[in-house]
Amino acid sequence: MLPRFFAPEAGRSAAESIVSLPEDEAAHAARVMRLAVGDSVRVFNGRGDEWRAEITDLTKHRVLVRLREAVTPAVEARIPIVLAVAVLKGDKMDDIVRDAVMLGAAGIQPLVTERTEIGLAAITRGNRVERWRRIAVSSCKQCGRAVVPRVSETQPFESWIAQPPQGLRLMLVEPGVAAPTQHVHEVAAPASAEIVVGPEGGWAEREVRVAGQAGAHLVTLGAVTLRADAVPLVALTALRTVWRDL
Amino acid sequence: MLPRFFAPEAGRSAAESIVSLPEDEAAHAARVMRLAVGDSVRVFNGRGDEWRAEITDLTKHRVLVRLREAVTPAVEARIPIVLAVAVLKGDKMDDIVRDAVMLGAAGIQPLVTERTEIGLAAITRGNRVERWRRIAVSSCKQCGRAVVPRVSETQPFESWIAQPPQGLRLMLVEPGVAAPTQHVHEVAAPASAEIVVGPEGGWAEREVRVAGQAGAHLVTLGAVTLRADAVPLVALTALRTVWRDL
Repeated sequence: MLPRFFAPEAGRSAAESIVSLPEDEAAHAARVMRLAVGDSVRVFNGRGDEWRAEITDLTKHRVLVRLREAVTPAVEARIPIVLAVAVLKGDKMDDIVRDAVMLGAAGIQPLVTERTEIGLAAITRGNRVERWRRIAVSSCKQCGRAVVPRVSETQPFESWIAQPPQGLRLMLVEPGVAAPTQHVHEVAAPASAEIVVGPEGGWAEREVRVAGQAGAHLVTLGAVTLRADAVPLVALTALRTVWRDL
Repeated sequence: MLPRFFAPEAGRSAAESIVSLPEDEAAHAARVMRLAVGDSVRVFNGRGDEWRAEITDLTKHRVLVRLREAVTPAVEARIPIVLAVAVLKGDKMDDIVRDAVMLGAAGIQPLVTERTEIGLAAITRGNRVERWRRIAVSSCKQCGRAVVPRVSETQPFESWIAQPPQGLRLMLVEPGVAAPTQHVHEVAAPASAEIVVGPEGGWAEREVRVAGQAGAHLVTLGAVTLRADAVPLVALTALRTVWRDL
């Protein structure tokens, strides 16, 4: 397998054109992988296109590649699923972003909920979204996806839920919640979906009510109780399996 | 919800008997939770039985409880699944044990494979199995299970695979492996199963061949490429979902 690089500059019908890799990709190619002019690589533009390419110019900070033939990119999930997830403590979001990208998430929406233990200001100050975007790219490089899922700016839960959904909206809740719920098994395959996952402390009652009013369906993973950081992976897997889209 | 403690001494028909909690459970009750004589708790024996109980004696190192009425324990998976998993680097196994228990694994078999980066001697020296057993108990306390899955002694892959399987044996492999594979969707529900997951570097060709000869079925998670530490959780979820046992 050729080494793969992210080349967002590459257009759709770009064969034989020369594109420049972003600076961190160039550094990776030149300094970590020690590639040289003439080496073959693969590049993907993050929008679903991938090519075999050759390095035509390489310094420590700049790498140019000539796109040769287009190659068939990895198959994307048939049903796009956006993962909307309350930001967890510490570095746990890093793994959530990494694994969600590998499991085919179409996008990631970080949320601040009532019981989220980190505030919007701290997330902004820490450039967390930029970090998660870099992780999404690196995860695509590892798992072979040619589509880099969009990591959106963090939003407060209540302003996000008030916006029109990008498909069937499913809120993951604990089995005991005081409202009608569906088991993931019972959710018929939609054209597209959003799954909404809460923080370590769970959803506030008010949030569940607001979500229901905004048209979200409350779903459970059966009687299983999980740690918050395992829920996104388990929910994505269970839904893609139920929808026979894995 | 009453605080729950692990009381392996409690027999099946033990109502009104007095049992002693293990020392670390006693310390947790006395020093962390600051419970007192007369307080109500729940205790489970790790073999599927659970009671409401009352503390009758309590010091820093010893806690006795009188078992009152038996309570209905959390429902176990209908199809027992043992997770046999190559020991991963660092502390990653801790999370795998914790999450596999929460997802209902019936047992955990740590393995050393050709590409496992830690040897049997280091695992023994580090008392890793003892640590994973404590994690299994603490995970049961969190998730409500009254059955503590057995964490077996670490074994070399080839001696383990030569033993008779405890049910349908499924080896998780990468999509590109040079042997016939099934998609998890295609695996009919067995009476019980073992799922075998490799290390960061994957399976050696020889291991796949030996497993096939030992009757293991090679299965894939579709075209998805995951990090090794996400595979156990995703495989358990996908199979329990396919078998409608979540």
